[in-house]
Amino acid sequence: MSHTTKEKAKLLARIRRLKGQMEAVERALEAEVACGDILNLVASVRGAINGLVVELIEDHIRMHVVDPDMDPDAERAQGAAELIDVVRTYLK
Amino acid sequence: MSHTTKEKAKLLARIRRLKGQMEAVERALEAEVACGDILNLVASVRGAINGLVVELIEDHIRMHVVDPDMDPDAERAQGAAELIDVVRTYLK
Amino acid sequence: MSHTTKEKAKLLARIRRLKGQMEAVERALEAEVACGDILNLVASVRGAINGLVVELIEDHIRMHVVDPDMDPDAERAQGAAELIDVVRTYLK
Amino acid sequence: MSHTTKEKAKLLARIRRLKGQMEAVERALEAEVACGDILNLVASVRGAINGLVVELIEDHIRMHVVDPDMDPDAERAQGAAELIDVVRTYLK
Repeated sequence: MSHTTKEKAKLLARIRRLKGQMEAVERALEAEVACGDILNLVASVRGAINGLVVELIEDHIRMHVVDPDMDPDAERAQGAAELIDVVRTYLK
Repeated sequence: MSHTTKEKAKLLARIRRLKGQMEAVERALEAEVACGDILNLVASVRGAINGLVVELIEDHIRMHVVDPDMDPDAERAQGAAELIDVVRTYLK
Repeated sequence: MSHTTKEKAKLLARIRRLKGQMEAVERALEAEVACGDILNLVASVRGAINGLVVELIEDHIRMHVVDPDMDPDAERAQGAAELIDVVRTYLK
Repeated sequence: MSHTTKEKAKLLARIRRLKGQMEAVERALEAEVACGDILNLVASVRGAINGLVVELIEDHIRMHVVDPDMDPDAERAQGAAELIDVVRTYLK
């Protein structure tokens, strides 16, 4: 399953980046950086979590429901493609 | 398609309720009700919009992608049921 | 209180625009417009609600807590200005 | 400033818990746990981030704008208390 393995590597890279961002927040708090700057760091963590959620849901749709690029039923493929767009719009 | 008609009536009822809630916000502003009370009214509008979004996405999944209660492929049906749960968790 | 009156007129204009957007969603549903298009209309309603919330909270901060443009205490004025930025970042 | 030190310890404990939750997501992905279960883990990370944001903003209001429990101006103290409630309602 080369696709899944590639996908997994991508998700793990995202999660490690997120852990690095959390450590930056921790260091900033320990160094008593200004509140506003810490809140900006946390805003980027929040954005990164939302990006991870969108990618996980998109993968779930493609692998366990309908892959819009592979499904032989054209209407269902289009429905799945629209669904992926909607998830991106509402969760990013 | 009686299912769609029933679904449509439910969605229209939701939207009319939402319009009523917006009118309550308008009246509260005109009557110069306290900020905090207006923000509480708007919070309920926001909750109602999120409920509408979840219902629209769930209908889209059932009608245009995979209906978990009807699909003959058991794994795909389960994938769609999980997807609906995820949408509810993340968008409510 | 000319500032409040001006602010009130701005908020009422926003709410009337929002009601118009809700009516567009209602008409789209009645006309059985495609799901994806309805979800795009609702996404813009959601964005408009978030904009309204940010404006209401900003007004509340300025009028009932600390107005960063008027407060004689420079540190407190800066704290309030940062707070307004944070609210915009997190709620838009 | 013992209050700040206590507050800082509380925030650091929250962030360490969050890092632990991110590591649980990482292990789940490596162990190829089911998508739905990973998305549930990530939902709890997202909830924890929102809790952290609310606490940071509340601390910012109390320390750099107006502390509702200490401010001699009763109206401003009430405005700040309402603001903290609003932040909790909208960001949790």
